[in-house]
Amino acid sequence: MANKASSRLEWRINVPDGTSKVLEPESGAVGKIWVGLKGCMGIIVWKVWRVLEHAWHIGVADPRKVIHCIKVGLALSIVSLFYYMRPLYDDFGGNSAMWAVMTVVVVFEYTVGATFYKCINRVIATFLAGALGVGIHLVAEQSGDQLKPIILGISVFLFASAATFSRFIPSVKARFDYGAMIFILTFSLVSVSGYRVVELFELAHLRLSTIAIGTSLCILVTMLFCPVWAGCELHHLIHQNMEKLADSLDGCVTEYFKENGSEKDLNKKMQGYKCVLNSKAAEESMANFARWEPTHGRFNFRHPWKQYLKIGASLRNCAYCIETLNSCISSENQAPPCLRKHFSNKCMKASSYSINVLKELAITIKKMKKSSNIDVKVAEMNFAVEELVDALKSLPTTHFIATTTGEESTKAKVEGVEGSEYPSPITKVLPLVKVVSLMVEITTRIGGVVNAVEELARLAEFKAAKDGKPKQNQPTDKLVSDH
Amino acid sequence: MANKASSRLEWRINVPDGTSKVLEPESGAVGKIWVGLKGCMGIIVWKVWRVLEHAWHIGVADPRKVIHCIKVGLALSIVSLFYYMRPLYDDFGGNSAMWAVMTVVVVFEYTVGATFYKCINRVIATFLAGALGVGIHLVAEQSGDQLKPIILGISVFLFASAATFSRFIPSVKARFDYGAMIFILTFSLVSVSGYRVVELFELAHLRLSTIAIGTSLCILVTMLFCPVWAGCELHHLIHQNMEKLADSLDGCVTEYFKENGSEKDLNKKMQGYKCVLNSKAAEESMANFARWEPTHGRFNFRHPWKQYLKIGASLRNCAYCIETLNSCISSENQAPPCLRKHFSNKCMKASSYSINVLKELAITIKKMKKSSNIDVKVAEMNFAVEELVDALKSLPTTHFIATTTGEESTKAKVEGVEGSEYPSPITKVLPLVKVVSLMVEITTRIGGVVNAVEELARLAEFKAAKDGKPKQNQPTDKLVSDH
Repeated sequence: MANKASSRLEWRINVPDGTSKVLEPESGAVGKIWVGLKGCMGIIVWKVWRVLEHAWHIGVADPRKVIHCIKVGLALSIVSLFYYMRPLYDDFGGNSAMWAVMTVVVVFEYTVGATFYKCINRVIATFLAGALGVGIHLVAEQSGDQLKPIILGISVFLFASAATFSRFIPSVKARFDYGAMIFILTFSLVSVSGYRVVELFELAHLRLSTIAIGTSLCILVTMLFCPVWAGCELHHLIHQNMEKLADSLDGCVTEYFKENGSEKDLNKKMQGYKCVLNSKAAEESMANFARWEPTHGRFNFRHPWKQYLKIGASLRNCAYCIETLNSCISSENQAPPCLRKHFSNKCMKASSYSINVLKELAITIKKMKKSSNIDVKVAEMNFAVEELVDALKSLPTTHFIATTTGEESTKAKVEGVEGSEYPSPITKVLPLVKVVSLMVEITTRIGGVVNAVEELARLAEFKAAKDGKPKQNQPTDKLVSDH
Repeated sequence: MANKASSRLEWRINVPDGTSKVLEPESGAVGKIWVGLKGCMGIIVWKVWRVLEHAWHIGVADPRKVIHCIKVGLALSIVSLFYYMRPLYDDFGGNSAMWAVMTVVVVFEYTVGATFYKCINRVIATFLAGALGVGIHLVAEQSGDQLKPIILGISVFLFASAATFSRFIPSVKARFDYGAMIFILTFSLVSVSGYRVVELFELAHLRLSTIAIGTSLCILVTMLFCPVWAGCELHHLIHQNMEKLADSLDGCVTEYFKENGSEKDLNKKMQGYKCVLNSKAAEESMANFARWEPTHGRFNFRHPWKQYLKIGASLRNCAYCIETLNSCISSENQAPPCLRKHFSNKCMKASSYSINVLKELAITIKKMKKSSNIDVKVAEMNFAVEELVDALKSLPTTHFIATTTGEESTKAKVEGVEGSEYPSPITKVLPLVKVVSLMVEITTRIGGVVNAVEELARLAEFKAAKDGKPKQNQPTDKLVSDH
């Protein structure tokens, strides 16, 4: 307490002199460096703090990412300690621990599918390249010491070039990109090694076995502790995107026809379509990895993952339209309230039926059961859209074609009208016509999503939902129109 | 000749019996297997042929890919032969050749930027992890044989987990993903190695020097022989996408207002916007790599690559609208020819001015010189759009607001009209209104592209084009309207 008081006292004494002017004599070069260092440290600490905060949010948002990190640490600790406890440091063995550790580091991926893809590629490519390398070594050894380096060099050049080129072919890149790299690596390593062929066999055996240990450890750890299946992720992404799209559509139409100011929640809801627009790359990589996954949960080994990409494409198609719709809403040029009110009910009805269809499709995918009443909902949607189009048809009344064919007469009439208190009508109705026609286009594209989901249900043999039969006989059938 | 004749004779003799019935006794199990094998071989040969054909097309379309493969082969042959000629197979050296080969295989990428990214990440991560690993080893050694494996195991677990988690942070992933992996790898390898600390220093020195040899060889080969710069690729992609967008817009509008059947060339031209829609991932990865590239050609080290991403986003924004426009064109419900003819000129004019703007922007980026007449072209575009909107305004004539406020009276009137020979007008004009309003929206979005390109010109300090001054004084100024 006494110390504290004295320091406080000291400060108090210094304070009156502590203005910048008085401090100047003390802050020479050293002082400046000190201030600069403090500033730098402050910035670094602040930046590190920001990154840590960001990392914390990532961890909280998806705890599986934290679990993944723990899994990686676990697998590496196990393989490190295993080799540390009983080192195999004989002539070749110096490498063997390294190969196991390297395999774990390189092969362990976030999803099971990606881990499988890398494991299988690594084992097969190592085996093939090893066998080929030993073969070339045999040939080179028999052709004398002079020719040997030439043969080896040419073979490395040829095979490395060919394997590198194969990585540019899309179908190879999607499935065997990592394998091609490992092929080049192993083949070059075998060629560059100065061992004799007999030694090579022993080396190959050791390397394959350590890789096998590494890969099987990875597969065990990735599958046993909270596995993240690429297929499940893709499945989840698709039905979540469908719900986001429905929410966006709902938000957009509500926002357009609402009578009060914008709500914050609504604005956030409306932005969901942007996720759909940007999810192509994620979908493709997940579908690629999902192919390598064994049967898990509700998904077979040969689950039609490609069809998910088609559903994703059809969703993006909808999202393009919703993006245009969204820009209509934010444009300044709006239809007059009386017109908007006139269309509000019909447009809201069409959008809510469209949303019903999207949500039903999302449930179909989520539960992996054929929906019993999707046909009814599609019919309802089509019926509502037809009503909307009818309402639009009934807008202008007469003399339309007659006036447009003669441009001059129209102009004259318009000029006459402009002076009066009636504003030019098409300008007023234009924003509304845009919204309605986009709404119609969106329902057409939702039809595309319905087809894609039905194709998925057929390919993946979805079972009918339990409550299928009774619902089909419900009186909602009366809404089914002839489209 | 005699042989040939006899074989031909034999065949001729066999032919009459060679029908399927006669051959049956011969084609037992062996025959079936033979036929099956032939079928399998045929399929395999056909598939391989298809892949080769595809590869050939890829090579022809972009010979730089073939050159890249040759470069990889060359770098690998050089490093392999270098180590084969003077092997460093002493106590630690067994690994050293391997590290150089591995570095070349793993680090050599298609673009200079990607190669730099991997090289710099690899060297720094190896150095950091090596130093940290040796430090932990020192601590562990001093705490006795019992505690050593525990300390090593825990440190591997902690650092591997932390480094793995850092790869989930977007800013780290974009710049240091590969570095984080190499950090984990090196740290684990140092920890698992049973060497004493003095040996470790020697090992670290050897490993760092081999990695340095590998990386510098890669950088030399990638920069000296036909370098592919990620920055140039991004630059090229952006202005090419701009041209594709202009062509798509041109194709769409021409297709809509054309009077004859569809042309094949036009159809292909129209699809250009799809490239723009799908180029986000490519743009982002190229911008990431471009940051690592040294000054080359017209690009400085600190060229504003991020601004290219913004231009890309604004282009995609336009592409969404063109996508919707494209679906309007293919819809069956078309406006009557007289109406289309009425709007044809104005719409074509607006689209051709928009295309002019896009092409001018593409040239601005291509030549990296400020356009002298972009303002004029934007004004022309705005003027043409204004005219188009005016033409649209002048379409319906009177009594519009009056009829829409009273729904019932409208309906009555419509029913009255439906019986007559005038079809309901809004249905006829609807597709056209859609096209025109999309055209207007597209020009608004082109405005966004103009802003993004101007920002790039400011950030990258584009110089003014040589023919700047005279053009600005040209009489085109009269077209500049007040927007």
